[in-house]
This record gives sequence, structure tokens and C-alpha cells, in this order.
Amino acid sequence: MNNRIINIGMIGSGFMGKAHSCAYNAIKVMMPDIEGIQCHSIATKQTENHKEFTEHWGWQTVENDWKKVVSNPEIDVIDICVPGFLHYSVTIEALRHGKHVICEKPLAMTTAQAEEMAVTALSSQTIHGVSFNYRFLPAIKLAKGLIAKGKLGSIRHFRACYLQDWLVNPEFPMTWRLRKETAGSGVHGDLNAHIVDLARHLVGEIAEVSGLMKTFINQRPHETENRIDDVTVDDACAFLAHFNNGAIGTFESSRMATGRKNANCLEIYGEKGAIKFDLERLNELEFYDASEPEAGFRRILATENDHPWVQHWWPSGHILGWQHSHAHLLYEFLKAVQSSSEFQPSFKDGLASQKVLDAVELSANQKKWVHIE
Amino acid sequence: MNNRIINIGMIGSGFMGKAHSCAYNAIKVMMPDIEGIQCHSIATKQTENHKEFTEHWGWQTVENDWKKVVSNPEIDVIDICVPGFLHYSVTIEALRHGKHVICEKPLAMTTAQAEEMAVTALSSQTIHGVSFNYRFLPAIKLAKGLIAKGKLGSIRHFRACYLQDWLVNPEFPMTWRLRKETAGSGVHGDLNAHIVDLARHLVGEIAEVSGLMKTFINQRPHETENRIDDVTVDDACAFLAHFNNGAIGTFESSRMATGRKNANCLEIYGEKGAIKFDLERLNELEFYDASEPEAGFRRILATENDHPWVQHWWPSGHILGWQHSHAHLLYEFLKAVQSSSEFQPSFKDGLASQKVLDAVELSANQKKWVHIE
Amino acid sequence: MNNRIINIGMIGSGFMGKAHSCAYNAIKVMMPDIEGIQCHSIATKQTENHKEFTEHWGWQTVENDWKKVVSNPEIDVIDICVPGFLHYSVTIEALRHGKHVICEKPLAMTTAQAEEMAVTALSSQTIHGVSFNYRFLPAIKLAKGLIAKGKLGSIRHFRACYLQDWLVNPEFPMTWRLRKETAGSGVHGDLNAHIVDLARHLVGEIAEVSGLMKTFINQRPHETENRIDDVTVDDACAFLAHFNNGAIGTFESSRMATGRKNANCLEIYGEKGAIKFDLERLNELEFYDASEPEAGFRRILATENDHPWVQHWWPSGHILGWQHSHAHLLYEFLKAVQSSSEFQPSFKDGLASQKVLDAVELSANQKKWVHIE
Amino acid sequence: MNNRIINIGMIGSGFMGKAHSCAYNAIKVMMPDIEGIQCHSIATKQTENHKEFTEHWGWQTVENDWKKVVSNPEIDVIDICVPGFLHYSVTIEALRHGKHVICEKPLAMTTAQAEEMAVTALSSQTIHGVSFNYRFLPAIKLAKGLIAKGKLGSIRHFRACYLQDWLVNPEFPMTWRLRKETAGSGVHGDLNAHIVDLARHLVGEIAEVSGLMKTFINQRPHETENRIDDVTVDDACAFLAHFNNGAIGTFESSRMATGRKNANCLEIYGEKGAIKFDLERLNELEFYDASEPEAGFRRILATENDHPWVQHWWPSGHILGWQHSHAHLLYEFLKAVQSSSEFQPSFKDGLASQKVLDAVELSANQKKWVHIE
Repeated sequence: MNNRIINIGMIGSGFMGKAHSCAYNAIKVMMPDIEGIQCHSIATKQTENHKEFTEHWGWQTVENDWKKVVSNPEIDVIDICVPGFLHYSVTIEALRHGKHVICEKPLAMTTAQAEEMAVTALSSQTIHGVSFNYRFLPAIKLAKGLIAKGKLGSIRHFRACYLQDWLVNPEFPMTWRLRKETAGSGVHGDLNAHIVDLARHLVGEIAEVSGLMKTFINQRPHETENRIDDVTVDDACAFLAHFNNGAIGTFESSRMATGRKNANCLEIYGEKGAIKFDLERLNELEFYDASEPEAGFRRILATENDHPWVQHWWPSGHILGWQHSHAHLLYEFLKAVQSSSEFQPSFKDGLASQKVLDAVELSANQKKWVHIE
Repeated sequence: MNNRIINIGMIGSGFMGKAHSCAYNAIKVMMPDIEGIQCHSIATKQTENHKEFTEHWGWQTVENDWKKVVSNPEIDVIDICVPGFLHYSVTIEALRHGKHVICEKPLAMTTAQAEEMAVTALSSQTIHGVSFNYRFLPAIKLAKGLIAKGKLGSIRHFRACYLQDWLVNPEFPMTWRLRKETAGSGVHGDLNAHIVDLARHLVGEIAEVSGLMKTFINQRPHETENRIDDVTVDDACAFLAHFNNGAIGTFESSRMATGRKNANCLEIYGEKGAIKFDLERLNELEFYDASEPEAGFRRILATENDHPWVQHWWPSGHILGWQHSHAHLLYEFLKAVQSSSEFQPSFKDGLASQKVLDAVELSANQKKWVHIE
Repeated sequence: MNNRIINIGMIGSGFMGKAHSCAYNAIKVMMPDIEGIQCHSIATKQTENHKEFTEHWGWQTVENDWKKVVSNPEIDVIDICVPGFLHYSVTIEALRHGKHVICEKPLAMTTAQAEEMAVTALSSQTIHGVSFNYRFLPAIKLAKGLIAKGKLGSIRHFRACYLQDWLVNPEFPMTWRLRKETAGSGVHGDLNAHIVDLARHLVGEIAEVSGLMKTFINQRPHETENRIDDVTVDDACAFLAHFNNGAIGTFESSRMATGRKNANCLEIYGEKGAIKFDLERLNELEFYDASEPEAGFRRILATENDHPWVQHWWPSGHILGWQHSHAHLLYEFLKAVQSSSEFQPSFKDGLASQKVLDAVELSANQKKWVHIE
Repeated sequence: MNNRIINIGMIGSGFMGKAHSCAYNAIKVMMPDIEGIQCHSIATKQTENHKEFTEHWGWQTVENDWKKVVSNPEIDVIDICVPGFLHYSVTIEALRHGKHVICEKPLAMTTAQAEEMAVTALSSQTIHGVSFNYRFLPAIKLAKGLIAKGKLGSIRHFRACYLQDWLVNPEFPMTWRLRKETAGSGVHGDLNAHIVDLARHLVGEIAEVSGLMKTFINQRPHETENRIDDVTVDDACAFLAHFNNGAIGTFESSRMATGRKNANCLEIYGEKGAIKFDLERLNELEFYDASEPEAGFRRILATENDHPWVQHWWPSGHILGWQHSHAHLLYEFLKAVQSSSEFQPSFKDGLASQKVLDAVELSANQKKWVHIE
């Protein structure tokens, strides 16, 4: 489908809808090698002030019923930015209409859903992907390259955390993210989802896990009504893991880590080298090469012209932000659509992550080690 | 001029033209409170491939003659992104046509030019500004606020450097930035311009200077032709300063600081506190409050919703990039235009900086201290 | 026993023997408020070159039989620096002779041993302590003080690792530290012992654990003979924990973390604040106070005159090293001996840590959660 | 003079006297390869409490008249730790008695004094040295080695500061360091002396300088009497420099840099690489090698067994402190004495530094560039 218009339909207009809209606009200006992108329709629950979506975000049409977008024959790609509990039904419907689908993470609420989504996608002719956007940071892609080139040797340790603190205040009200029925899980599906994907991407498949989940504050004020609601998801979740290749892993996510804002920190230790990464300094990758005479962790500023995606942006040292990860991901997804080639992370990856996430939950509930598969 | 369309004309389509175009697109998506911005015309030397400017960058019309843009009665604002030697003539012409003007730094090639530009602007009814974009980083605005609140007390030390390394390779070819006739000076007008503006903004006016300039590599290959050209500007420039308020300052910029990519580092020490900043970690401000019981430099991640401009972007901890400084600056400039209020940094600031830059050059040439004014 | 000579007998002359001897010498010069310390006798396996111990390390007498030192009636304090498998017998014998005992960590090879040592010590009139030296770093004591003052509020997260890489090279030969019979366990008893003690010290008692242990390289060359020996201890050990007070913890130690030399890194997150610490930058404590208007982690350089133990050393900013922790610990132990007051960490602490360490081993072996006690 | 006793006489018992005494004790324990060191006599103004010097610091004899020590025929080495204004007379007298002399920095109050001291020392058969102790940090010696091996190529930039804040409080009383007659200059002779020596050591000779000196607080309370005294030295001093080899330099020292405790920060940029160093993290050296494929500043933890002097201390990652620089320096000086070989930095280095310091003062006073020599 080279060289013709790609019409995009977006489902959802919240935080992620805004982030992806911003990304499409940035792709247009900065990555003009990809042609014919049209922001066709956006589906939103919002019944007024649609001008923001058209004049500002750049969508041609606004719909209140997502099914209209998903079934619109003019539209090629469905970009799913709604809360997790809707991923399954929107995806299945979109695939039924033959759309290419890029879906926000986590792919589904359960392994069963993710399995059906992946099977359906694989039996279609469409391109499918999950928005694990951190794979698309230059520093992470550099890390992937160093590992692929054998610079770390075989890997022994994966250590990751993803720490935020927006729930420390007990007066912070309920949101869909704090209810099991809309979010599936709490910080686990939200943030551990990211580090599980990065673990699979950078180290390999996880064999078994032992986890714990913790809710520190069990009740919070309702969003709008004068009542107290139960928090039905985890505030924090940590787990140990064995990887298939013999590496061991420690994972921890929290929304109660006072002072940490968006601290997705990775460490990977191998026979020959190591890498470290911190999302709050996402332009930097630390790399240790044990073969060097005066070895030390070196801070690679991932803003050189020959670093991944950087040639689309600014000169050396002009740092990029969080939003660039979305632009890079969507750019690669649209290029995959144009060239009818597979996109990674695909729904297979979304499914594989979901299995790990579910295993951790089972492990935490039953207080035992759980094998994946 | 509230609530009506603001038509923008851009002069120049290089690095800065792209950065500003990207900023206008981001403003549209992320800052919809500012209405009616139109990217009307862009003037470029490029005679083909105009589709990039229209379909991608979002300009309605492309012109090869900047005078057509500057004189177009539909256009309200002229955004000057051409090399420094053209700032003077484009500005004077734009002001003659009653346009609001935002001009890239440094404002001019000489104090005499800057003086005429400032006088002309001040005698017009227009809004005028200089693109000292680093004032518009959340961390720098936080620093300004802390100083304004007296958190540092009276200031004693300003220490700044701006270090890059793109000229270390002797095979790096000539550019307009390496010729005195097009650039005025080398790293001095390019990077010291930024730190002089920040010094004036954060500390106050500079009284006298003693500087040195150095060209380490005096000849380089011509851009396209098979010949060697003379580098006629400085590779590095350092100077000492006394401020009017009694503070002392050290300034240094270089394009030969191997390993430093875009290291604009500031330190300000006052009676009661201190701040530190590094452009390569532009989301962070370090602040020392000597009145605290266990004092220490604290790293403020300038990404909170109540930090300057951040409410337009993402949640806490989702870091911004270099380009956001331009979006913030242009947003504030356009708001000033809409509300017919003064913009800072204005041409008066551009002139004041130019006087300091010229004094440093004179000091370096004559090897003596030079008073400003 | 104020104001009279304290005669010290040291058992062991390896790494720790040297570190403690160095500490006694430093105490003499820098902490002259403690009077009458005599380095009386050292017991060593070394049968020659005793001049090093007398002329250099400062001991008056050298013995090859530790029992002679332990039973010497002139000696008041026994300082045990031998490998872990000897702690039990030397301690019991020393207590039998009424000596005060300071013993290197971990206190014992098993909980049963530790229990007997603690019971014996408590029923004697002696002062007893375990050399958990990191409690005696100024930064850690500052952290303890901040927590005690309620600056963190109730604690939710304890995150600690202790990472080294000296076993990455497969040719690194066997040592007593790699044999179960001499070391008890590997990195677990060596390094997790430290972070378990710090967890108990800073957060509170641990209720239950789930752990894993891993040996990456199972055979290594014998120290001196031309044969290959089995490594019978863990190279890495990680565990999850619930504390009695509701906090959760993650712990990980490794000797295979390529590039990390002595990275004992702690993070503690509470309702109101947080602290971070890294042993490789042991003069620094990072502290986050959520009540501050522009909050951020602040780097407290723990070298101020009013910081713990610093008044004995140098002016502000003159950093201390690893060895100072031993000087501070021994200084405090000797002061406790002089004033006949309890020392912390005592054998009760050594026992409590041992229970946690044993529970982790059991958990790892049986792949299940294990309660402490 | 191999293999016989070296008797040391120390002149001065203040901060530096204590630091050197501590160093001699540490040398005895940790560096037993150097034999026969005797702490023979110490000269102090203190007329009582000599037990501290004998029982604690380890000196055999205490004298109140330094001339007795300097003239004692039993003594081989004179270690001068008194304030700067006494360096000249003690040194000349010690040399007259044929002593080896190690003198604290700066060598003298004036170039004329330093010249006489150097000439006298060079015409004697003695070993002479200046206590520029930072040359003796493992990280600095590693830096020297990297430069010597050509890893930086020819050097273009030397940037150094040495920032403290102990004079920020206006109530801080007078000391000998704040009077021209006892200290010669203020922060300049105290801290710039260090960075000038490091510049000469690492980069080469300085050709000319332009400096400024500033006293922010001109009067302070007398030490003990109820009166206000004039501060007659500089609080801060900055200067620009050209090196003989074409490099340029910026230097700045201050005792008024609020929040900086002992921040001796160096940056050196060459054709091929760069190094950075910070005394507050003195175990670390940052090194940038531009020839590496993914270049970045790497943090070398200078605690490996094959790093300079480290084999005398602890295993990898067990960090050293400020005081170790003195132990290393005195160890090397005593080895030079034992082997009758030249020591560096010698009085020639002390003189060369003094010329630069004097040139900066002249430059600041006359507001002009000053050539060295």
C-alpha cells in the first residue's frame, strides 16, 4: 500500500489521545519522508467543544460513537487510546473491519482477551502493534543494539523499577485507573507492563515469577460525588523472575514512591558489560564495557545524528522529550503499514506480556511461584 | 487585537525555521487557549520542493523573496530565522511595514545595527522580541522566580559556560557560521549570546569585561568547492565580568570542547542560596537553600503541573525537550501580540546583549578591560 | 570502667583485621577524647613476618593460637575478624572468659549458633556488638535521624541492592568465601547481611520473605592446587519482603553485576519524604521532603561539623572514605565499654538479621514464602 | 640513605599538622614497604596538653621553638605545616641545616621568597617538595597517565574552579587566612594555588593571565577581641590564561560560593578526548574518548587494585577520602628521600606556581594582562 493516503481513526481523546495527536503533528513536520498521513476521525465521549479536536489537534471529523470510526471504510488504521477495559472490544471490531490496529498498553485485561486479540490479528492480513513506546527511545534502541552486537555477553541480571508518587496524597480522588473493572490492575498493568515489555525486548522470555502486590491506601474520595470509594487495585507491585536464558530479574512498580515522578530505571548486567537507563533522563544511556582498559559506566548522550530517529530532529545535544517516543513508534507503525511489513511489538508481544502480568497477579494472590505458559 | 486571526510570516527555512515551524504546530495542538494562529507565508532561498513547507511544516504560501512576505499586508507577525547578517535589513523592513517582529539571536552584527533596530522598534507601535529561547524553559523560569522571591539573596557569582564540540574534527567544512561577514563572530555571538542574555535576565546588567578569543583551527575545507578557506571567527571565547550590582561573572563558550554536546551550564551563588542548571538536563533545576537545617543542592524536576508552561503538556515526570523552549517563547510572543502588551526579551534586551558581546570582542582584540556603554 | 586502659585482642589478620587495625590507629590520632586504648594482642595464622603486625599495625604481641588471646586476663575486648565459620567458637570462648566482644558480620553461620551466642552474651555482663559498619557512616546516621524525627512519615518502600562484580571473571579462583562450609552462604551472608541490618535499623522488623538464589558459575580453579572446585554458595540472591509495619521491601545482592564495584544502594519512601544512599558516594545522602514548595531530592554532603562523627575529622567538604565507618563503629564500641552501656547493633541485632538471612535461604530452597520466627 | 631510620620533624600543629600526622600513622599501617619512619619531633605554639601530640598523634618529642626541631641533628626531614608567612624562614633555616623539606602550599608569600627558597634547595643535596596533595589522588594520577599516553591529544581547554562557602556568614570571625600579612592572599593563594599546580601538572606552563579579585565582605569580627577588623585579602579570584602550548584556561576560586563545600572541579578538553574531575567525588574520574563508537564520558571509579596507590588500601569500590592524598604524597616523598631521588612537585614547581599567582594579583591590581616571567 505504498504511496497512497493512510487515513487514521483514533479512539479516545484523553491523555494518550492527546499524546498521539501531538505525535502525528510532529511526524508531519519532522519526518516528511512518510507521505500521505491523514488524521481522519477521532472518537470521543466529549459531546461539545469538538473544535479542539479539529482546529487544534488536526482531526477532520469527530464522532461520539467509536463504532462509526472503526467501521468507516475510508479509514485504514485504528489507533486505540481508550482505557484498558475497552481495548478488547474496539480491537476485535476494528480487526473485523480489516483495519490495521495500534493499541495502547497493556493490550488487554486478561490473557484470555489478549489471546483472542492476537489470534484474530494474526489470522487477518493487518498490521498490528502495541504502544510500548519506550522501545522507541533512542537510548533504548541503542541499548538493544549493544546487546544484539554481544557487547554485554550473556545476560545475568535484569533490574527494573518504575516509580511514581501521584497517589501519595490520600485526598487524591478515584479515577478509572483505581478500579479493577476499568483498569484490570493498578500500577502493575500500567507500569510493570512497560518494564515487562522492556525485559522481554532486551533480555528474553520470562520463565517464572514470584510477586507481591500492595494497596497502601484502600479508600479514596469519589471523583465527583460526595462519597468514599474502595480502591480495588494495587498501589505497588514487586516480583522476582527467572528468565528462560538463566538470567534473574527483579521488577518493582509503585505509585507511592514519594519524590519519584516517572522513574523507569533499568539495569542490565551481562558477562561482558552492562547498561543503565533512567526515563527521567531519557536522552542518556549508561554503558559499561568490561573489556576497556580503564572501564567505567559511560554516559552516552543519545542525541547524535546517527543514533536511532535522531536525524529527524535536532543537532547533537539538543535533547528530546517523552513525547518523542510516541512519534517514533507511530512513525514506525505507519511505515510498516505502508510497506506491509510486520511491526514490533506486535499483538504477539502484547499477549506474551499479558501472560507475565497475569502470572504475577496469580503469584501474588496465591503467594507462590508461577510458571509462565 | 484580541480574538482575531494572527497571520505569521517566517523568513528563513534552515535549522531555526524548522524549529519554529515545529513549535507553531505544537502550540496548535497543546496550547489551544491561543486562538487564530495562521502559518501564512514562509520565505526561503530554496526554489523547489516547496511541498515540504506547505504539506509538512504547515505554511500556506512559499516565497523566494523575503520582501514579499515582509510587505504582505495580510501578515501581522514576522518571525526572522535567517543568519545573523540579515537580521538588520529584514527587521528594519518589517518594522517599516508595521509588523510585529520576533528575531532570532543575536539581534544584530554590531551594536550600531542593534541600536537602530531597537530605536525603530520602540518608535513603532509593534511588539518586538528576540528569540532567547532558554528564558522559556520551565527550569529557568523557576530559577528566575526563586531569585525574584529573594531565595538567593544578593548575588555574588555568576558562572556560565556553553560548550559544544562540533568543530573538533578538522575536516568539518566551512559554513556561514565560520565566516565573519555572515556570522559576525563565531561561538561568541552564537553561544555567549545565550549566556549573556541569561546573565542579564537572572543577575542584572554587566559593567565591564575582560575577554579572550581563540581560533584553534584556522582553515577548513570549503563547503562544496575543492579549496581551503580561512576561518575568520572564534572557536572559543571566555571572559570575566563585573556586574553593576557587585557580582562577578565568568563566561566561556566553545565549539571545541570534546565530548560536550550542548552543555549550557549555569551556576549562580547568592548570600542565601544558589542554583545550578545544565541544558543537557534541561528538565532539572538544582537549588540550594542555605536556611535549611540539612542543606544540600536539590534537584527539582521541573515537570510539575504548577511549573511554568507545564500544564500545557504531560503529567509529572514526563520530560520535555529542547524544542519546547521555542514553543513556549512563541506562545508568549503571540499572546503579547494578541493583548498588545510588551514582550520580554525585547529589542532593548537584544541591544543590551549586543553591547556586552561587542565589548568582549573589543576587550579581546585590545587585551584590556572594557566598560559597557 | 571509665578512665582506665582498655586492652584489645584481635582475632584474625586478613582484610578485616587490617581494616580494624587501621581504624584503631585513626581513633588514636583523631579521636583523642577516648583514652587508654591499647592494641594488646593479635592472633593470626601467619607464622612469620610478625613485624608487620607489631611495628606497622601497632600490636604489642602476636599469637598463633587465638585461644591464648581470648583467655589472656589482661585483655578486655575481643575483636573478631576471622571468617564466618569461626565466629561462633571464638565468641563463645571469649564470652566464657568475660570479654567484651565485637564480632564481624554476619554474626554466625546459622540461627541456632546466633541464638546461643546472643543468649550467652546477654547472660554475661559484657558489652557485645556486631560490625555492621555502615550504620556508622555519617550519611546513614543522618538518614536514621531524619526518619526518627518523622521526616519520612510512615515508611512504605525499602529498596536495596548491594552489587559487586569480582566474580565475573570465570578464572577468578576459589576462596573461603565460595565454600559453604567456611562462609555459610555466598553473597547472601556477605552483602545481604548488610542491607538486612540497614533495613531493620532504618525501617523495622521483617515479617516474611520470598527469595531466590543463583550461582552463575558453578566451578572455579582451586586457590593453589591444579584442580577445579565446586562453588557451593550463591553468586546472587534477591528477595521480596513484608515488614511488620506494613512496608514492603526488595533486596538484591550480587557478585556478578558487571561494572558495579561496591554499590550498596538504598531507597526508602515514606508518606512524607524519601531518602537515597549509594555506598560508592558514601559522603552523600539524598533527601526528599514532600512538604517543601519546590520539592526535589537534595544531596546533603554529610561532611559538616555538626554531622555525626565529622567533628573528629576535617572541615566541610573534605570527604571521608569507607574505612572511616570502622573507626566510628569501634570508637562507639569502646565508648560503650568504657561507660558500661549497651552497644547497638548488639548480638540481638546479629541474631535478628540471621533469622532473616536463614528465612531467605529456606524460601529460596523451598520456593515459598517464609515467615520470620 | 636506604634502609635506615628516617626521623621526621614537623613544624606546626594546626589543621595541616593533624592531617599529616594522621597520614604518617596510616602509612605505618597500610604501606609497610616503607621502613623506618619515625615521627621524631613536633614544633607547636601550644604550651600545654602535649599529650595529644605524643600519645595520640604519635610524636616522640614536642617543642615550642621550631628552631630546635629544625636544628636537631637527629632529624632528617622537616615537614612544614605552619601558615604561609612562615614558610620562607623555616625552609631557609631547615635547608641551612641540611634537612630534606616538604612544605605546605603555597610555597611562599612572594615570587622573590619562592625564588630564594628554590635556589637554596637546588644548591643543597636535599630532597624538597611542596604539598600539592591533589596530584596524589588516584583519579588525578590516572588523568595524568591518560594525558601522557596521548589519549586527549593536544589540549585546548583547561577549566577549573575551587569553590567553598565558609565565608558566606558575615559573622564568621577573622583568622590568619583573612589577613594579608599572614596569608599573603586570600582564596587565591589558598585554592587557586591548587588549581594552578594541577594546570601546570596536567597541561603545561602558563604564558599570560588576566584576573580579577573580589572581597565581598570587607570587615569581620576579631577572633577573640570585641572589635571589627578589616579583611585584607580576596574572597574570590578568577582569571583567564593562555598556556604556552596554545591551550586556554579559565580559573576561579571562591570562599563565597554558597552551597559548594570543597568543589575543586577540573575539565580538560583535547583534540581526542577529555577528562572531568570533582574533589567532592574524588574517587571518580570522568574520561571521554572521542575515538569510541558510542562515545560518552565514562565514570572510572579509581579504586581498582592497579590504580595508583590503591593496592595499599582496600578492594575495588571501597572508596578513599581526602586524607589519603596526604598519605600518598608523604609516602612518595619519604621514598624519594630513601632513594635520594628527585621529588615532584619540587620547589621548582612551587616557584613556578608562585609566579603565576603573583602575575594574577598584579593583573587584578592593574587591570591588565600580565606575562609570566
